[in-house]
Amino acid sequence: MVAVKYEFIKQCKQTGARLGRVHTPHGIIDTPTFMPVGTQATVKTMSPEELKAMDAHIILSNTYHLFLRPGHDIVKRAGGLHKFMNWDRPILTDSGGFQVFSLSEMRKITEEGVHFRSHLNGDKLFLSPEVAMEIQNALGSDIMMAFDECPPYPAEYDYVKKSTERTSRWAERCLAAHARTDDQALFGIVQGGMFADLRVQSAKDLTSMDFPGYAIGGLSVGEPKHLMYEMLECTVPHLPANKPRYLMGVGSPDALIEGAIRGIDMFDCVLPTRIARNGTTMTSNGRLVIRNAKYTDDFGPLDPNCNCYTCTNYSRAYIRHLLKADETFGIRLTTYHNLHFLLQLMKDVRQAIKDDCLLDFRNQFFAAYGLNDNEKGF
Amino acid sequence: MVAVKYEFIKQCKQTGARLGRVHTPHGIIDTPTFMPVGTQATVKTMSPEELKAMDAHIILSNTYHLFLRPGHDIVKRAGGLHKFMNWDRPILTDSGGFQVFSLSEMRKITEEGVHFRSHLNGDKLFLSPEVAMEIQNALGSDIMMAFDECPPYPAEYDYVKKSTERTSRWAERCLAAHARTDDQALFGIVQGGMFADLRVQSAKDLTSMDFPGYAIGGLSVGEPKHLMYEMLECTVPHLPANKPRYLMGVGSPDALIEGAIRGIDMFDCVLPTRIARNGTTMTSNGRLVIRNAKYTDDFGPLDPNCNCYTCTNYSRAYIRHLLKADETFGIRLTTYHNLHFLLQLMKDVRQAIKDDCLLDFRNQFFAAYGLNDNEKGF
Repeated sequence: MVAVKYEFIKQCKQTGARLGRVHTPHGIIDTPTFMPVGTQATVKTMSPEELKAMDAHIILSNTYHLFLRPGHDIVKRAGGLHKFMNWDRPILTDSGGFQVFSLSEMRKITEEGVHFRSHLNGDKLFLSPEVAMEIQNALGSDIMMAFDECPPYPAEYDYVKKSTERTSRWAERCLAAHARTDDQALFGIVQGGMFADLRVQSAKDLTSMDFPGYAIGGLSVGEPKHLMYEMLECTVPHLPANKPRYLMGVGSPDALIEGAIRGIDMFDCVLPTRIARNGTTMTSNGRLVIRNAKYTDDFGPLDPNCNCYTCTNYSRAYIRHLLKADETFGIRLTTYHNLHFLLQLMKDVRQAIKDDCLLDFRNQFFAAYGLNDNEKGF
Repeated sequence: MVAVKYEFIKQCKQTGARLGRVHTPHGIIDTPTFMPVGTQATVKTMSPEELKAMDAHIILSNTYHLFLRPGHDIVKRAGGLHKFMNWDRPILTDSGGFQVFSLSEMRKITEEGVHFRSHLNGDKLFLSPEVAMEIQNALGSDIMMAFDECPPYPAEYDYVKKSTERTSRWAERCLAAHARTDDQALFGIVQGGMFADLRVQSAKDLTSMDFPGYAIGGLSVGEPKHLMYEMLECTVPHLPANKPRYLMGVGSPDALIEGAIRGIDMFDCVLPTRIARNGTTMTSNGRLVIRNAKYTDDFGPLDPNCNCYTCTNYSRAYIRHLLKADETFGIRLTTYHNLHFLLQLMKDVRQAIKDDCLLDFRNQFFAAYGLNDNEKGF
């Protein structure tokens, strides 16, 4: 009856970070983990085999985008999202809530749900807790997300309070509408903006509903990082220890480490794939902008400390050439490297938890990466 | 002292097609063969491992493009083109002649060479037999091509005659300037437009210079296919049987078969990769335009008779979705399929030569593909 189960292994003695495993119908996820984003049923430029080669345990796909195109009915008739996109490991789908608020046009929020126009063709559409469940049940993801409202930053206390209360009411409706509890787990999403008391209240509301996992939403929306970390610190203690905790939309190396330190198990972000398309790469010595002229005749790898496919086989000079010449293979190479970098980082974080030295690891990583205060970020 | 050698295996009893092998410093090429085009030191969207998985024996890269960007000095300092692009099988480079005439601006042809402006940034540049050899020696391709002029179609007899004679004089200069005969083979290019006597004269001029291989250039430039086949029929008998024969710029399935029937060993063309980027695919039942609405809910493979990576793992509905959503993974899938299709076709052609039934194979293939007259083409 429970599609997803969290297995706690141990806590780091230096921090609140925890090592664990999330068991799903499509396999086991070692946590803390990073989830590459496959918005439109594909992680941009990557094949499923490449994602496996870099040891991605789970990917995320976007309900809003698949609802618009190709439509969840097509994905369902294809045999579900796993089969449609040829990915047999776990998939998490978001609820569409965040995209409705960030991408769509002319949206109108009511207690019932959200009316909006498609950003693709202007079609009038409607999403609600019930519709979001119907879509995600059709997609067949291992982990579904409750339909929530993500308030902007900054926002007034009163607005955030009302929104957060509605998100709790919507969460109840999601639970009631979810039709595939045997093979799909529904996670609740804690909101509350940048207000500690609302975060705590939201966490209490949601944990009382007994979801199999909890996300923390509405962070990494433009606030300073110390505020995000404060919100984690006041929220996580109110989440149950026997369920996975997922911090939504976070993927900078520093925030992944800081999140893990604060007890987060799962992360996702478009950052590594998005910046890769502009030629920005993450390396053990910090950011590297490969289009820079100084790499024209640099025949070394992107990151001398990396053993990924890109760094094993190609030089900075070649990758720069491909990007300057608008060759998509260049973006394949930078995307591969950035995703591998974050997945390797999470492996290192897991090892550091095992070895009770995550704080030491954090300090070494930050020094090498040039991140000696939290605000700099990526 | 000879970098490339042709090994004749047998001739088909039904046609003039021949089975053979071309031995090069980077391995053996089974012929007749098709060479995927990697213009800018990458076969668009593909990795070297993918090209190997589809059994590409050799690829082509373009001297003109690499001269402009990143510059042959960069490729040379990277250790040569093979190392730069991570491809350890044979590479053929063209001479830049064709691109100077088709892409550059404000070109001026003199006996010495061609002055032109870069199509990228307007830089004034110069290519000549000597410069084309210098660039290709820097790139380090297994097979280099002589610097020639490719007359347009249609063109006057007198113009083509003068041009072809100059191409022969340039061929002598190429031989003299070629500095790496030990590990790079230089092929001559037969020109002569659509005039049989000029083709024969060009073939005689070039064979007297004893190149290790011969190309037939200046075809597939807009003329009707029967004219191309006539030109092949009057040229090939004047080429030596113990050297490879390469028909430049030809890649439609029908012309590959017709060329093989007329004794051609090597072909190249951007057609399979270029049409793949628009969503047009080659299948055993003819052309398939995957963006067509009727494939929205078609969950079968692109080609039910194909065992390539794309057809084994993905549906028409998924590929259509990716292309409609501007996802480059879709173009990877169509590119992979089209290249695999032509490489498999050449395997089938080789088997048919071995079995002395290439004419039967041609007729069956044409019927299935919907090609019952030569003019229809692809």
